[in-house]
Amino acid sequence: MSLPYGIFSYNNAPPRMGVLVGDSVLDLKVAASQGFFEGIMLDTVVFEQPFLNDFMALGKDTHQAVQQRLQSMLSSGSFEVSDETIFIPYPQVTMHLPIRIGDYTDFYAGIEHARHVGQMFRPDSDPLLPNYRHMPIAYHGRASSIVVSGTPIKRPHGQYLNTDQQPVFGPTKALDFELELGIVIGKASELSQPVSVDQADDYVFGFVLFNDWSARDVQRWEYQPLGPFLGKNFASSISPWVVPLEALVPHQIEGPIQSPTPLPYLQAPEQKHFAIDFEVSLKTAEGIETVISRTSSRHLYWSIAQMIAHHTSNGCNLNVGDLLATGTISGTEANTYGSLLELSWNGTQPLQLSDNTSRTFLEDGDTLTIRGWAGKSEQRVDFGEVSGTVVP
Amino acid sequence: MSLPYGIFSYNNAPPRMGVLVGDSVLDLKVAASQGFFEGIMLDTVVFEQPFLNDFMALGKDTHQAVQQRLQSMLSSGSFEVSDETIFIPYPQVTMHLPIRIGDYTDFYAGIEHARHVGQMFRPDSDPLLPNYRHMPIAYHGRASSIVVSGTPIKRPHGQYLNTDQQPVFGPTKALDFELELGIVIGKASELSQPVSVDQADDYVFGFVLFNDWSARDVQRWEYQPLGPFLGKNFASSISPWVVPLEALVPHQIEGPIQSPTPLPYLQAPEQKHFAIDFEVSLKTAEGIETVISRTSSRHLYWSIAQMIAHHTSNGCNLNVGDLLATGTISGTEANTYGSLLELSWNGTQPLQLSDNTSRTFLEDGDTLTIRGWAGKSEQRVDFGEVSGTVVP
Repeated sequence: MSLPYGIFSYNNAPPRMGVLVGDSVLDLKVAASQGFFEGIMLDTVVFEQPFLNDFMALGKDTHQAVQQRLQSMLSSGSFEVSDETIFIPYPQVTMHLPIRIGDYTDFYAGIEHARHVGQMFRPDSDPLLPNYRHMPIAYHGRASSIVVSGTPIKRPHGQYLNTDQQPVFGPTKALDFELELGIVIGKASELSQPVSVDQADDYVFGFVLFNDWSARDVQRWEYQPLGPFLGKNFASSISPWVVPLEALVPHQIEGPIQSPTPLPYLQAPEQKHFAIDFEVSLKTAEGIETVISRTSSRHLYWSIAQMIAHHTSNGCNLNVGDLLATGTISGTEANTYGSLLELSWNGTQPLQLSDNTSRTFLEDGDTLTIRGWAGKSEQRVDFGEVSGTVVP
Repeated sequence: MSLPYGIFSYNNAPPRMGVLVGDSVLDLKVAASQGFFEGIMLDTVVFEQPFLNDFMALGKDTHQAVQQRLQSMLSSGSFEVSDETIFIPYPQVTMHLPIRIGDYTDFYAGIEHARHVGQMFRPDSDPLLPNYRHMPIAYHGRASSIVVSGTPIKRPHGQYLNTDQQPVFGPTKALDFELELGIVIGKASELSQPVSVDQADDYVFGFVLFNDWSARDVQRWEYQPLGPFLGKNFASSISPWVVPLEALVPHQIEGPIQSPTPLPYLQAPEQKHFAIDFEVSLKTAEGIETVISRTSSRHLYWSIAQMIAHHTSNGCNLNVGDLLATGTISGTEANTYGSLLELSWNGTQPLQLSDNTSRTFLEDGDTLTIRGWAGKSEQRVDFGEVSGTVVP
């Protein structure tokens, strides 16, 4: 099974590449210096970089060779996981943003989320807009403010309408999270050269958990006619470990029936989706943690391959390190929603926490954590978590 | 007067930094090797980089010292512009994308353009949306597909509604240009640290001409609810020479009266705008060129400092190499519009060209060129041009 990659540091050494093996980080630089990767065509200086980009750019054949070597070394028993020169106990390391992110694109592929937004804000019309089932809707987001899990999230200021419908500027009163899956692009495409649905997997290096923090009051006032801007771009958080696409192959499932049938450029013999489970918890400043949602990537209407094919269908080029996100993933039941906007139904139904307080939106001191995994026991693939604490 | 910076190559040498002096490119690497910059604290290896980013990051004091030295060398007559080891005649060089672009943000600050779009698509309501005069509206765009002037623009495919209102996929039938001013960010700001209107100039390295090519049919079908995506991200073109902010100081003007008064975070003792003139020409495949518009940056409602203050007001951070664009700049008269959407009033009033053909949108073989300048005679600052030919 392909192991997750990340960027770690410890003992004041500069950040570099590791893989997660159980509860330890395998230090690839040290492993390489001990000859682990002999015979693989690979400049091991990539293991000393502060981002995964150079390694990603080496291509899937090299990634596969490295993963196979790791498997055979680990299963051969030819070294000890207790050897702390190679295997650093996870509590001793600091994790860093794993990717030097190029462009970041946020999709809207969670159909139940799209439906809920429609029900809330356009109650008198079809909750899904006419274009929704014809193409994966998306918009460009901000790459500079994407941070690694654990980074505190400062409550942003912004302009919004007060109760008298007058614009005011101040700290957002509607700070929200959004549960999303992030897709890390590992191969560049050329400008004016679309990537087909069938080719799309070649461009996917792996996945991260993604929290697209949102200021709903700011978003509501600013978003017409050009879409979200300051309501989103103050911060997004990603999990530190990038799970390779190959690790998810055992967890592929058939996607939902797409009706109407998409146009040919979005069709494939089989639409490969993934069965990834998510859990969201909210821990108050007092330390009481409540699981507020459990949901699944099964609620994505569009496949990742369709997102990539659509994104490049006009010739838009991808670069190594680009990040796509799926958009908020929500289920159909109230405890399966991927945002507080939905969980509190736009603030009208406060969410009860286990300490008997309630939330419409996030309060200062709240820690929001999204955890993710696929499968069970031997087949289980763990995404770890993406977490952030709101500070004033 | 501050000279424009660009990245050039000639004689098969790798691309590097130059400044434009009349009709010649001053090769900064050669100039440095001859001691031009002695006494300035500066690692001249920045002059050998393929992008301006490293030079921009040195800060305004260094930029000023370099420009002063260039002025004194040029005015002292201590060398000959005919010395082709330092001054390469412009026709001999190839110009490259000058900036390694980080995030790209497109504003909507041209108030007449916003008004025209409202008049066309919401004829029964106020052409300006309620938020327009309260904040500089903007959205994030695609950095990867920004190309330098002269790059051919391949007509993009995309999904749009046919005359029966059915979604189809094919080459866009409504390829347009958008005349904009681009702002190159030369200084990074910290996440969660807003930049005030008063500080904003420190973050501006300079300006380029910007053509935000658009596929109007694709844009119209996709843009609800999250804004423009594939209708824009197939390509944008920029002019090769970055005009330093300091060169524009003699061309500062007072901005329009802003009513209602913006919120305090958008106020400044004086709103500095610039008087830059633009001319747009369309040359057919047969080589007949028609000037189709003349307009001015005077039609921007929001100042560049206000755009930067708004962009960072929620803590969103800027990086060296980020690009902001103003949005389409149009005047009030029909021959002063900055897009074919307006010039042909959404295709209803075909634009007459001097060869007696007409255009609603761009045809294959058309070359669209935007030229820009500020002031006259001795005070004149030339932006050069951004040009692109549509290919099938």
